Amino acid sequence: MPTPSLTTVLDTGRTLLEPALRDAVSLHLGPEMGRIARYHFGWADAEDRPTGTWGGKMIRPTLALLSARAAGAAAADGLPAAVAVELVHNFSLLHDDIMDGDETRRGRATAWAVFGVPDAILAGDALVTAATSVLMSAPGAGARSATLALMTATQRMIEGQASDADFERREDVTLAECVRMAGDKTGALLGSACALGADLLGAERHLVERLRVFGEHIGLAFQLVDDLLGIWGDPDHTGKQVGADLRVRKKSLPVVAALDAPGTDELRALYLSAEPLDESGVRRVTELVERAGGRDWARDEADRRIAAAKECLADAGLPDDVRAEFQEVAGFVVGRRL
Amino acid sequence: MPTPSLTTVLDTGRTLLEPALRDAVSLHLGPEMGRIARYHFGWADAEDRPTGTWGGKMIRPTLALLSARAAGAAAADGLPAAVAVELVHNFSLLHDDIMDGDETRRGRATAWAVFGVPDAILAGDALVTAATSVLMSAPGAGARSATLALMTATQRMIEGQASDADFERREDVTLAECVRMAGDKTGALLGSACALGADLLGAERHLVERLRVFGEHIGLAFQLVDDLLGIWGDPDHTGKQVGADLRVRKKSLPVVAALDAPGTDELRALYLSAEPLDESGVRRVTELVERAGGRDWARDEADRRIAAAKECLADAGLPDDVRAEFQEVAGFVVGRRL
Repeated sequence: MPTPSLTTVLDTGRTLLEPALRDAVSLHLGPEMGRIARYHFGWADAEDRPTGTWGGKMIRPTLALLSARAAGAAAADGLPAAVAVELVHNFSLLHDDIMDGDETRRGRATAWAVFGVPDAILAGDALVTAATSVLMSAPGAGARSATLALMTATQRMIEGQASDADFERREDVTLAECVRMAGDKTGALLGSACALGADLLGAERHLVERLRVFGEHIGLAFQLVDDLLGIWGDPDHTGKQVGADLRVRKKSLPVVAALDAPGTDELRALYLSAEPLDESGVRRVTELVERAGGRDWARDEADRRIAAAKECLADAGLPDDVRAEFQEVAGFVVGRRL
Repeated sequence: MPTPSLTTVLDTGRTLLEPALRDAVSLHLGPEMGRIARYHFGWADAEDRPTGTWGGKMIRPTLALLSARAAGAAAADGLPAAVAVELVHNFSLLHDDIMDGDETRRGRATAWAVFGVPDAILAGDALVTAATSVLMSAPGAGARSATLALMTATQRMIEGQASDADFERREDVTLAECVRMAGDKTGALLGSACALGADLLGAERHLVERLRVFGEHIGLAFQLVDDLLGIWGDPDHTGKQVGADLRVRKKSLPVVAALDAPGTDELRALYLSAEPLDESGVRRVTELVERAGGRDWARDEADRRIAAAKECLADAGLPDDVRAEFQEVAGFVVGRRL
């Protein structure tokens, strides 16, 4: 059987998802919140005029639809799970943009920049509330179990975001703490997306759990690859300045792995000081992180996570086509064929 | 049978609720978010040292516990409903304080003032997420129905808050819009609190609906009384400056009722202009609102709502003691014996 192309998989997801997501917004959000949501999703401009476009890659909902097929159901049966996970993801984007003061997203002004911070806070609140309503209203046998799982993942994501900010203020962050934080911040929701469709449809626990752990590994691998690119990536491909993450002294996984290694006094002194890092400082830090093994560790850990993810898939007992599509999407997420 | 005193009713609620709320926070929130929640609830200071005190009057959870008793169950069976509704209420307080820039609440610095806006946004997110988890994990037959009802109320509250802010920027707000906004902002969660315990325990729809509508009426009556006090209240009792609401040109219900009346050109000109209102301006506006019937309308509407609330209670078929306690708490909310 030929492997489906990534574009086909994502387009299929998007075709199913867009009307369902629009329905959820118009059913569960009031007019004020609906307007901000339509802007945020890219369906409307700031004056609520339709744009005819559509933002976001829909990775998570596509995984949720695959998850329904993993349980032997039609992709469409997983729509409440897909919509709910996309609503939670966008709730976090709305609030993240406020917290980070980011003024653009997907090439447009962020919601808070257009509507103000109070309305953007409320719009995020509205989306996370709607996520619960969508999942709870679903006919699936596992609505209760799926809602609890999604809330647990959301709670971990929130805690991960808070830890991330806290770690930037601390000097004594360990690699173990950092890995757990990345798992919470990035892995939890991706893991939930992979399991949610099956969970909603009442699939057996083994399958649901394998899919969740698969997604968690993929989430962590993504974070590791993203952190590697933030230091050693080609600016033409990443769209970031060389060493952008180092310049702001981000406690990314390769850096913390290096700081955690013995004999890194120079790195600690450079990286944990309050002095701004100039270009030569960034080059020196890059060298020291590599020399302390931070780059190798992150590459190896990403490999281990990807291998573990593949094992989860193999062990889940999926139909061949569903497994192939999971691999396609996961490969896209981690920037590498699985 | 002697009517139970309000203090007894509230104290009984608090005694049951406090440990359950603490359990929910420690079970569903991570360490970072738990710390902010403990500060916000008044259990701990900014360094997470126990204070031995306890904030909030617990009106909504007390109503939720009564709601469980209305369904013939023990108050304790309504605890998940009570905890969930209190979590949602406090989620909204955390975010409101950020949106309004309020630096104190219950005599202490607000969470955002202590921990910063990003962490306070996340803490609000964590509480609303925990509310769902608590209710969904409850053994009650109506967990799904109760969760949906609470999410619908939360969604209305969010929309009401956004409309409230929007109305302050608009000149053409009608009384009908204003009444609906107040119902969403204040009535929805109070109505949900009154119904949630019974709903969770699988009570028949008639009872659940009567209790919900009872609470909605009480919520609107509270808002009307609060708005009246904001204009004509005794500053010694309200703790507000005379005419404080008028000075900031709040579109409170009595004012909008007056603006909606015919022949109020002078009031419109004074109230809708951008010029600051001095003391004599506030006095003149107060007079004009009263002359246009805003005060009478609000008083009459509060009376109508209280009467309608009493009818709902009578029609719900409650045990005498439960009805008496509902009346006590509702009377406290609207500042008048029911």
